[in-house]
Amino acid sequence: MRRLALASALLALFTLGAEAGADPLPSWNDGPTKQAIIDYVTRIAKEGGPDYVAPKDRLATFDNDGTLWVEQPMYTQFVFAVDEVKTQANQHPEWKTKDPFKSVLAGDMKAVAAMGEKGMVEIVAATHSGMTTADFDQTVRQWLATAKHPRFKVLYTDLVYQPMIELLDYLRANGFKTFIVSGGGVEFMRGFADKTYGIPPEQVIGSSGVTQYGTWDEKPVLIKVPKVLFVDDGPGKPEGIEHFIGRQPIFAFGNSDGDKEMLEWTAACEHLCFMGLVHHTDAAREYAYDRNSDVGKLDKALDEALTKGWTVVDMKNDWKTIFPPAKSGSK
Amino acid sequence: MRRLALASALLALFTLGAEAGADPLPSWNDGPTKQAIIDYVTRIAKEGGPDYVAPKDRLATFDNDGTLWVEQPMYTQFVFAVDEVKTQANQHPEWKTKDPFKSVLAGDMKAVAAMGEKGMVEIVAATHSGMTTADFDQTVRQWLATAKHPRFKVLYTDLVYQPMIELLDYLRANGFKTFIVSGGGVEFMRGFADKTYGIPPEQVIGSSGVTQYGTWDEKPVLIKVPKVLFVDDGPGKPEGIEHFIGRQPIFAFGNSDGDKEMLEWTAACEHLCFMGLVHHTDAAREYAYDRNSDVGKLDKALDEALTKGWTVVDMKNDWKTIFPPAKSGSK
Repeated sequence: MRRLALASALLALFTLGAEAGADPLPSWNDGPTKQAIIDYVTRIAKEGGPDYVAPKDRLATFDNDGTLWVEQPMYTQFVFAVDEVKTQANQHPEWKTKDPFKSVLAGDMKAVAAMGEKGMVEIVAATHSGMTTADFDQTVRQWLATAKHPRFKVLYTDLVYQPMIELLDYLRANGFKTFIVSGGGVEFMRGFADKTYGIPPEQVIGSSGVTQYGTWDEKPVLIKVPKVLFVDDGPGKPEGIEHFIGRQPIFAFGNSDGDKEMLEWTAACEHLCFMGLVHHTDAAREYAYDRNSDVGKLDKALDEALTKGWTVVDMKNDWKTIFPPAKSGSK
Repeated sequence: MRRLALASALLALFTLGAEAGADPLPSWNDGPTKQAIIDYVTRIAKEGGPDYVAPKDRLATFDNDGTLWVEQPMYTQFVFAVDEVKTQANQHPEWKTKDPFKSVLAGDMKAVAAMGEKGMVEIVAATHSGMTTADFDQTVRQWLATAKHPRFKVLYTDLVYQPMIELLDYLRANGFKTFIVSGGGVEFMRGFADKTYGIPPEQVIGSSGVTQYGTWDEKPVLIKVPKVLFVDDGPGKPEGIEHFIGRQPIFAFGNSDGDKEMLEWTAACEHLCFMGLVHHTDAAREYAYDRNSDVGKLDKALDEALTKGWTVVDMKNDWKTIFPPAKSGSK
């Protein structure tokens, strides 16, 4: 055991050395936001300091849509569900005459939007059940490998925010365990979170449906059934954190009113806590929206952040670049 | 990044060195069971070998009651619930005349047992709700720090199986991420799993109730409400693995029919998989029970293990010691 301790100490030393030399957040402009993040991490990582937090308690939770990747003009998972309605339509002749499927198939997204949340839930439920978890995972991966964003014309996984990828890396280099806590479907996100964010499936928390264990061709399978198990949004976020993680994060980032309770819950942590919001202020490079947006509405959480002194990222001024450098072959 | 790679290589080297010298499972008698475990770990860890599994895919799931600690003569969590009925009785005058509480308060456990599962569920629901998650956690920790097992007269956390503790350590030393997947209540187990097994709260999966986010004295809290969210037993185990982990384990250990589906699910993994059962065969040092036991019944899963060649631990012959060496002050 002594050898292990020695090697761990060496590892820590090398890691520190590597960090001291380079800017850990090169895609963030210098300024108070970047400084607030670095100051926070430095303080809680300083052994013997008044704000020191043991590595085992360094938990960070991130919302996904609008916090780690683009959510405009429509949540990516909903775009996937709409595409799936089209793909599966020939197995469902009844959809031709039944809304919301009829409007989706007719390409009338305005009519779909007018049906509100009820229509969205029906579309997601119908396309996210009736298959094994393995088949669903395969379908998600295939879709993500080919579907392009209407404005940027690249894969959705190319529309993650480079500054946030750097932040995730920076936190992990400082002993944090990073989690996604999103209103999105957990199995949809698990299809790309590991490769895209370096977050393994068991650290992805999201809304989830019921699965049923059974056998198919004498092999054990889990079937996705059209029944909601857990909605991970709003107050569901701290509830989900308790359900899946069982302890409070000390660091959390969101971008909308759906993240308000997660940030409040984080603010009640026993240590020095960090609460951050991404404010979409960059119509030229990404999107500008907040209080009046249907997707990713940021209103009450923004007021609370301003009142309580949480860190608010001004995307236009704080981020030097928005997206990762283009990969060859992904366009 | 190169420095980090170098330090990691050093760490790996030191770890290997430490292992080569010592028996990783000193509380296991030499024989086919111990050999099966060591052979398995050696094969999947051998880089370039035909059965190699990348560290990120090395997931191991363990049942808790009867697999990691004693479950006789009664599940520990149920003993806790019964004690809580007595503690909370003065706040519930109606319990004096209402079963199952009336019988518990009269000390008539035979009558309680005769009420079957319904009575147990009522007792657990009543004592596991109506407080904040933080208060419940505190109550569990206090109880575990003082309550003694009726036969062994030591704390329940002293009645973990030393050979299984060594197995958990051995797997982690070989890159495994270890999880508990138990029918027991997740918040009860999280009160001791970290300290006792080295398994952090977020890697503890169990049955769970609904919590509700709200405020109390202007502070955010989660209230435990008497509503079941998820039952992690039988087919609920693979369903829970999917819900919480999102991928299949390659190594699983249980001890009863409630673990059958978890072991089947593990057997369907894409790699070389390991399925193990603890068979309680030692009435002198622990307990001997299987097909006819009310607690921890092992019948169908034992047949399946024998048919399919899963590893069955014969407690009496395979384990040199059962419990960890006594700690001063814990008796």
